[in-house]
Amino acid sequence: MIDKFSEFEIIRRHFVPLSSGARGAENLKDDVSILDISPNSVPVVSVDTMVGGIHFFLDDPPAHLAKKLLRVNLSDLISSGAKPVGYFLSISLPEGVGNQWITDFADGLKSEQDLQKILLYGGDTTSTPGPISLSITAFGEVPSKLIVRRSSARLGDFVYVTGTIGAASVGLYLIKKLGMKVAMENASFAVSRYREPPLLLDVAKLLRGRANAAIDISDGLLADAGHICSASEVAMEIDFNSLPLSPEMHLMLENQPKLKNIIPSGGDDYEILFCASEENGQNITEDCKTIGIEVSKIGRVIPGQCEVKIVDGDGKRMLFETMGWEHF
Amino acid sequence: MIDKFSEFEIIRRHFVPLSSGARGAENLKDDVSILDISPNSVPVVSVDTMVGGIHFFLDDPPAHLAKKLLRVNLSDLISSGAKPVGYFLSISLPEGVGNQWITDFADGLKSEQDLQKILLYGGDTTSTPGPISLSITAFGEVPSKLIVRRSSARLGDFVYVTGTIGAASVGLYLIKKLGMKVAMENASFAVSRYREPPLLLDVAKLLRGRANAAIDISDGLLADAGHICSASEVAMEIDFNSLPLSPEMHLMLENQPKLKNIIPSGGDDYEILFCASEENGQNITEDCKTIGIEVSKIGRVIPGQCEVKIVDGDGKRMLFETMGWEHF
Repeated sequence: MIDKFSEFEIIRRHFVPLSSGARGAENLKDDVSILDISPNSVPVVSVDTMVGGIHFFLDDPPAHLAKKLLRVNLSDLISSGAKPVGYFLSISLPEGVGNQWITDFADGLKSEQDLQKILLYGGDTTSTPGPISLSITAFGEVPSKLIVRRSSARLGDFVYVTGTIGAASVGLYLIKKLGMKVAMENASFAVSRYREPPLLLDVAKLLRGRANAAIDISDGLLADAGHICSASEVAMEIDFNSLPLSPEMHLMLENQPKLKNIIPSGGDDYEILFCASEENGQNITEDCKTIGIEVSKIGRVIPGQCEVKIVDGDGKRMLFETMGWEHF
Repeated sequence: MIDKFSEFEIIRRHFVPLSSGARGAENLKDDVSILDISPNSVPVVSVDTMVGGIHFFLDDPPAHLAKKLLRVNLSDLISSGAKPVGYFLSISLPEGVGNQWITDFADGLKSEQDLQKILLYGGDTTSTPGPISLSITAFGEVPSKLIVRRSSARLGDFVYVTGTIGAASVGLYLIKKLGMKVAMENASFAVSRYREPPLLLDVAKLLRGRANAAIDISDGLLADAGHICSASEVAMEIDFNSLPLSPEMHLMLENQPKLKNIIPSGGDDYEILFCASEENGQNITEDCKTIGIEVSKIGRVIPGQCEVKIVDGDGKRMLFETMGWEHF
């Protein structure tokens, strides 16, 4: 159980160094921080909570967990066109969690902070009789007129997605079925994709003023495309054969065609799905290519009732067993 | 266990109404919200997490809990001179929590929102195998030069505190010793003070530009005064006889003098302790009086090593058994 003394000690030793250079964070000696936002930008905020046993495995290495926690949360900001600036961390720790775990976790945060050029601005450290619980409030900045919302997809827009999809959910499926060790030996690419979401920081500014709507794929392609449809009051038609898969994924599907079902409905890809006019979509695609990120055109925004249709090569509708996120 | 479907349903039914009118929150249909901050102000943020069994009793009525959660968090903003604007709620619910609990909790949030003129801007709703866990990220605005920090107490400042102190920790002590029902029958004033922190919204603007440092008393008067001393690199001398107690508390102390020990070290008062020059302190005191809030002068900022001395009427140092916050 963490009493106040060890709370302050944990903050001083592990978290204060993560806030070094954060203007307005007062070295975490105040419970209130000023968000450091550029003039002419507005502050945008996103909250994500990960609970042990629900959103991650209790034996996940803490540094991996830290990286995933930050990437998962920042991908919301990035898909809105915002530049991440910093984050607040609320961490609840059960009795058994020792100093080594916290050290490794803080090291993971530090590596990821450096990559993403963000800093820790505050938070809360408590004990819990439950499992480890981690909640991040991430903030960023975007010129107010250029924020990319879910609610403004337009009829006739094309639908695009960054990177490749499906592997993360196959990874999770295999970990649950075979255990981490065997899953890693058999399909390390999929397990790694589950544990390490892509870093898409530089995509944010390419979306600004050009994408009409965007979302990060966390609940699954079908479900998240559905969130855009629901917020924008449109429908989408997505061509299954256009969905970008990695070479390893193609190989795996040849051997186990049933895994195909997972691709559109499994989550944890953390790629960005966006809607744009053909011209803007083309420009975003080309600019992404110059920074090493592939973009695929996968469908269209059509009139309809918040529905996402997945069609095969002949335009025939395909049905999938599950829609989106499944908890453990 | 909450799956994504019921997560969306809980948000739609209980939380979307709480965000009605929140510009930039998109009816909670986006994972990113714009903070609605006035021009010439800066956004300030505070995070507080309450875990069932640690920070509250598992059978606490949910509406009380909601009120306490918001007051506890906003008191950080208020003591920094900020006007609260809105909040994000991360809520993790165990399997047994039913619809009635969530309804009562949301009703409690609504009442408190209306009092404090704040709105819900976003958050995350998850399941947990542990106890209920609630994390609030509250934000507000303050003209940047007028923020009141912990780190700028000055030598020669006087130390002031709003309202009365001690009753909340006596309430908590009695609840733990006697159970909620008997404690309520014997000392309802103390139990109520524990369960319902004061509402000090209008104090924020009275502190701006006049208090040199301020903090809300959550960990206990001694501990929180110590936080100012540590951040400001000063010491304080506090006169025990000046500490403001309610009439009920005076009566109780006559019968049970040992409870005196709890007063400076017990927490949960959520009054505001501040440091100011005598002239500014006098002005704040008078202005607080016009809005029905008593302020007491209780001590001085003196040179020293981050130490808080409590002295009796003869200037003799008094020692207390515990320093600040105790977990359950």
